[in-house]
Amino acid sequence: MPEKIVRLDRRQPQARSQLVMLAVVGDSASGKTTLTSGLAEAIGEDRCLSICADDYHRYDRTERTYLPFTPLHPDGNYLDILEQHLQLLALGRPVLKPVYDHRTGTFGRPELVEPREFVLVEGLHPLQTKLMRACFDATVFLDPPEEIRRTWKVARDVAQRGYTQDEVMAELERRERESATYIRPQRRHADIVVRFAPAVARADPPGTPLTAEVLLRPTIQHPDLTAVLTDDLRSAMHLKILRDADGTPTDCLHVHGYASAEDARQLEEVIWSEVGAVGPPPAGLGAIADGERSDSLAITQLILLFHLLQATRGERPDPLGEVLGA
Amino acid sequence: MPEKIVRLDRRQPQARSQLVMLAVVGDSASGKTTLTSGLAEAIGEDRCLSICADDYHRYDRTERTYLPFTPLHPDGNYLDILEQHLQLLALGRPVLKPVYDHRTGTFGRPELVEPREFVLVEGLHPLQTKLMRACFDATVFLDPPEEIRRTWKVARDVAQRGYTQDEVMAELERRERESATYIRPQRRHADIVVRFAPAVARADPPGTPLTAEVLLRPTIQHPDLTAVLTDDLRSAMHLKILRDADGTPTDCLHVHGYASAEDARQLEEVIWSEVGAVGPPPAGLGAIADGERSDSLAITQLILLFHLLQATRGERPDPLGEVLGA
Repeated sequence: MPEKIVRLDRRQPQARSQLVMLAVVGDSASGKTTLTSGLAEAIGEDRCLSICADDYHRYDRTERTYLPFTPLHPDGNYLDILEQHLQLLALGRPVLKPVYDHRTGTFGRPELVEPREFVLVEGLHPLQTKLMRACFDATVFLDPPEEIRRTWKVARDVAQRGYTQDEVMAELERRERESATYIRPQRRHADIVVRFAPAVARADPPGTPLTAEVLLRPTIQHPDLTAVLTDDLRSAMHLKILRDADGTPTDCLHVHGYASAEDARQLEEVIWSEVGAVGPPPAGLGAIADGERSDSLAITQLILLFHLLQATRGERPDPLGEVLGA
Repeated sequence: MPEKIVRLDRRQPQARSQLVMLAVVGDSASGKTTLTSGLAEAIGEDRCLSICADDYHRYDRTERTYLPFTPLHPDGNYLDILEQHLQLLALGRPVLKPVYDHRTGTFGRPELVEPREFVLVEGLHPLQTKLMRACFDATVFLDPPEEIRRTWKVARDVAQRGYTQDEVMAELERRERESATYIRPQRRHADIVVRFAPAVARADPPGTPLTAEVLLRPTIQHPDLTAVLTDDLRSAMHLKILRDADGTPTDCLHVHGYASAEDARQLEEVIWSEVGAVGPPPAGLGAIADGERSDSLAITQLILLFHLLQATRGERPDPLGEVLGA
């Protein structure tokens, strides 16, 4: 028996070089699905695999009522399996993904997913371990102010997940400690931090669309936006350098919610043409839950698209070569 | 983005050296579960992970009624995922395994399984690819005569899976071609071939227990049975060298169904003490579906146990060392 040798499957090592993986991480109802589904639509479903890491919950809704922790706790999830599946997808391999149904709070039949040119992974935990983070080409953390996120969570969970408003408020309280301990610390591991919030130090009237503040940290190479940021578009967007909360320098892009629809549309078209695309920007960009549109969301999505599409062009070293001894 | 490097998870590479993987392969109702569950019980559930590869079916029972092939066809199964999971288990890693329920013919919630000291994998397809075969320390193919297997399949599927006798007979016809094309050819890849059948060239009365014929092919190193095969036990078991159907030489062990219960019991005790175990052989050995006992099955299981337990002793090269550059 001792003579047999296990060899790792080395098929498709070249697949990796055509594959771009993006993580979109943040607390519950921070806008992950809204951001990601617009990206997926713009890229095209046939080029894109979208994965929600909530499928890796360890317990169903009934079981969770007996547990002393929530899905924000790492122990509430199969994080080792999520890590394994992210590695396999990054290697160009298929995985048999578990399926959690948020409407019923139960697990269904697993489904086979195969990586495509773009793999978008949204969830509470995808930046939790070093190995998970290494699977991604770019990582985004969504960081809305807590009061805005709570409003979003109540609206969604009541409308789509069968909870009452009181239940959602109680759950938010129950989760606060684990959010602070396990979810928010992932912010410092993100290459890009996105915050939708009312513009600071302005007295805009109620109903003014939210401004997007996009930190572009120097942990990865960002697209050159100088061609986009011409003087006549500064009313819609501007870039400045600042220090993040931890003192590290970073670029910060402001996409103004108070810009006129016309300025916003013009900016969208300029970025879209910089991506190298023809025709108008995809209609689904900027779509938010209630059927309305957010210009600052659309522009943020375009910046991320610029990023993703740029990553597929040009020379990239094959990261698998070093691992598999190719 | 191009700067990031994906590294494979190298944790627990040492786990492999303590892990023994056995495949038990054969057509539907060839006796896989009967053989394997006795082994698992003898080894002890706490040291053993048992996996049924039927969990990797791609379609549920309803979907299969619309398909032009049966689960015997590779396309009826997630064989790429089975291969991936076998590799991960061989590397000492957990997998999130799909779950197929034979009683209802549907898929349930997947379950986390972690490899233990012994991993027993039974199924229709585990010898289908070279990579799967490389994951095992020993591979067994069950090869009963077709008329006996058909009797077993009718009895089981009617009693446990909610089919009528006519349905099972029709299904057997429907499967014959795929069995010949995809299942039976795996026989030649097995290190050990087990055939329970009436003794050849004897006129034993009806009801005589089946004889086991165990081919021990020189593809792996087998335990030395010379200490066991003393003259006074030859009425219960004997070893001879012969040519297999393809002309290759092999050892063949005959465990006689017509041996007396006393001779069989004595042989069991000798093999069990050769394994190095204390106390009597485990009571569950030899148990067959209807609550009866087969001495030849018990002795076959003891030979396999001898094999498995021997594999965990002594010096073994670490097969992962070559792969992961340890």
